[in-house]
Amino acid sequence: MALFPPIEYEAASPEVRAVYDDIRATRQSDFINNFWKVLANDPPALARTWTTVKEVMAPGALDPLVKELIYVAVSVTNNCEYCIHSHLSSARAKGLTPRMFDELMAVTALANSNNRLASGYRVDVDERFKAPFAP
Amino acid sequence: MALFPPIEYEAASPEVRAVYDDIRATRQSDFINNFWKVLANDPPALARTWTTVKEVMAPGALDPLVKELIYVAVSVTNNCEYCIHSHLSSARAKGLTPRMFDELMAVTALANSNNRLASGYRVDVDERFKAPFAP
Amino acid sequence: MALFPPIEYEAASPEVRAVYDDIRATRQSDFINNFWKVLANDPPALARTWTTVKEVMAPGALDPLVKELIYVAVSVTNNCEYCIHSHLSSARAKGLTPRMFDELMAVTALANSNNRLASGYRVDVDERFKAPFAP
Amino acid sequence: MALFPPIEYEAASPEVRAVYDDIRATRQSDFINNFWKVLANDPPALARTWTTVKEVMAPGALDPLVKELIYVAVSVTNNCEYCIHSHLSSARAKGLTPRMFDELMAVTALANSNNRLASGYRVDVDERFKAPFAP
Amino acid sequence: MALFPPIEYEAASPEVRAVYDDIRATRQSDFINNFWKVLANDPPALARTWTTVKEVMAPGALDPLVKELIYVAVSVTNNCEYCIHSHLSSARAKGLTPRMFDELMAVTALANSNNRLASGYRVDVDERFKAPFAP
Amino acid sequence: MALFPPIEYEAASPEVRAVYDDIRATRQSDFINNFWKVLANDPPALARTWTTVKEVMAPGALDPLVKELIYVAVSVTNNCEYCIHSHLSSARAKGLTPRMFDELMAVTALANSNNRLASGYRVDVDERFKAPFAP
Repeated sequence: MALFPPIEYEAASPEVRAVYDDIRATRQSDFINNFWKVLANDPPALARTWTTVKEVMAPGALDPLVKELIYVAVSVTNNCEYCIHSHLSSARAKGLTPRMFDELMAVTALANSNNRLASGYRVDVDERFKAPFAP
Repeated sequence: MALFPPIEYEAASPEVRAVYDDIRATRQSDFINNFWKVLANDPPALARTWTTVKEVMAPGALDPLVKELIYVAVSVTNNCEYCIHSHLSSARAKGLTPRMFDELMAVTALANSNNRLASGYRVDVDERFKAPFAP
Repeated sequence: MALFPPIEYEAASPEVRAVYDDIRATRQSDFINNFWKVLANDPPALARTWTTVKEVMAPGALDPLVKELIYVAVSVTNNCEYCIHSHLSSARAKGLTPRMFDELMAVTALANSNNRLASGYRVDVDERFKAPFAP
Repeated sequence: MALFPPIEYEAASPEVRAVYDDIRATRQSDFINNFWKVLANDPPALARTWTTVKEVMAPGALDPLVKELIYVAVSVTNNCEYCIHSHLSSARAKGLTPRMFDELMAVTALANSNNRLASGYRVDVDERFKAPFAP
Repeated sequence: MALFPPIEYEAASPEVRAVYDDIRATRQSDFINNFWKVLANDPPALARTWTTVKEVMAPGALDPLVKELIYVAVSVTNNCEYCIHSHLSSARAKGLTPRMFDELMAVTALANSNNRLASGYRVDVDERFKAPFAP
Repeated sequence: MALFPPIEYEAASPEVRAVYDDIRATRQSDFINNFWKVLANDPPALARTWTTVKEVMAPGALDPLVKELIYVAVSVTNNCEYCIHSHLSSARAKGLTPRMFDELMAVTALANSNNRLASGYRVDVDERFKAPFAP
């Protein structure tokens, strides 16, 4: 059980309602998930976190489904049950198929494996890999 | 410095050369990076790891650049310097732009943050998020 | 369910009872939590771990509540459900308020985020940050 | 070497300069550390991250030095070299002594240890530890 | 609940049955655990993962029980509940005693602790520790 | 460079020397590695950590080389460069061969991979795996 009770829309302060309204408008759905309802116990954290999520997960140089895949890969690596479920749900709404999920898991598992081989054998970074991006 | 000396093509056993040849053919490049040259000290591990990489990172339901992004997100989460550099190099060869990299970092950072908010507040998974995939 | 049954005071060996007695005296409470009751299946580990906890978590250059906050931040980062709950309980007994908890979560989440930005962009440590402590 | 060149104040866009100006004003120092100069290659990320750092690390229910300690504990747990150095520097400017640092390390190490004992033995959370906060 | 329904032998495709048959023959047991039944939703991943497990966990320079201990130490460090339980089961079948398990937990906890002391104090690697293996 | 200067034997306090003497006697070697010399800036931490290492890494139900393997597996998983090097050195002194190291890396990588498959697919723990140890 969460460490704070979830705050429902009806019981929320105007400050919290404003964030909930924006979540609903952005997602075009009335549903507010528990993450936000619990975080609403700290209204500035709610507002700050939602602003970041809205900005970072929006379409940009990467499309929103790709961003959800990246999010899930990190959440699986950290074994965050809540985030795996919530962002898989978002990913499915954006078109994730079972086969795409399987490949996401396979790449996530592989990277976690090879990260340890590279670190364990203390492999030196190849010179040609060190070139920075142009700004 | 790596815990084993890298094994160059010329000094490699036929078993190792066969893997190197396949890496070169698959990537259409003569370059063999240090990860493989060090892993070549354990020929079965070299063969097994390359087979998995070749299979998992190939085009499928997800395209190869998306797979590289997922790989980098995991490597950044685990702070594996070698893997960040090597797979960014692969990603750039597949079309990664600086702006895509920035967004990849932003999503990776956000997920690492929100994973801790969800775990720290012990947020309960919403019922509607628990629906399994159809097989 | 724990991998070993918890050992209650009444069923404990004198060696284990001595540790339980010290836990009770130190905490001025009869309550022994499950962590110790399960660890009691390995009496030397019980004694060693309790000695370390007693020494490390005692008032010193940092006050005990600050130490509990640090402990919880690590436990949230590692997603250890037991430790989050048990050390939040200790922290609350030492004066943790809901608003302090919110700020603890916010800092923990932020550090987890920025750790990945610094590692992902491979930011070089500024020279002025490298000055060691005087002994 | 960082994946993007650091952007110095003189070469920065007005958007980036505005953030640098606020960092300088908030910290009452002309120094801008590499983290911000590299992140400046993504101006919205720079602005967003700075806004969050400024808000989260400000005095509140927890004092700024305690927040730096929490930040360092997470960074040590994740082994982020840059963040350990940069936030130790901030902590020292706020009054961290060598003896406080030693205790910070001792608690961080202890929590990382006991997190694994609790998870490894699969210890059940005591009922009395599950009480949520009042909102 | 798993994200895909477990696939039972009777409902499995010939490709999946072939892997199940090999698991059964290798382990000399009819029991197929949930990990494989869920992974069977991605038959190439099932085959690839099983091939690797069979090869890596087989007797070699290290004996199979030692390999299970290493596997559990990693799983405890990552807090993977499934893997802790499944590989403890394997380890017990190979001779793990309660006292061996206690020592495994003690070493795992100690390494997690000292990893943070070494990283937090930024201890320099002693020159004599850097000698590579001969190939 | 370490955050505190290493404390050499000649400059050490009697309290620190007593620990150094015990390290030397236990290891039958005059060499004191940097980990201890840096930790010596906090004499109680030095004494406490050494006591734990001496007790936990001693021969018991598991032999000392097996304990070193477990220690390295954890250190590779956490990417602690210092600990990988120092405990590989100990392991080699106790008989670790290159082939044993290769297998240690292979199991460590595999566990890190499969931990994510189990967590990502949310595989349910099989009932028969949940049996606790008898005390």
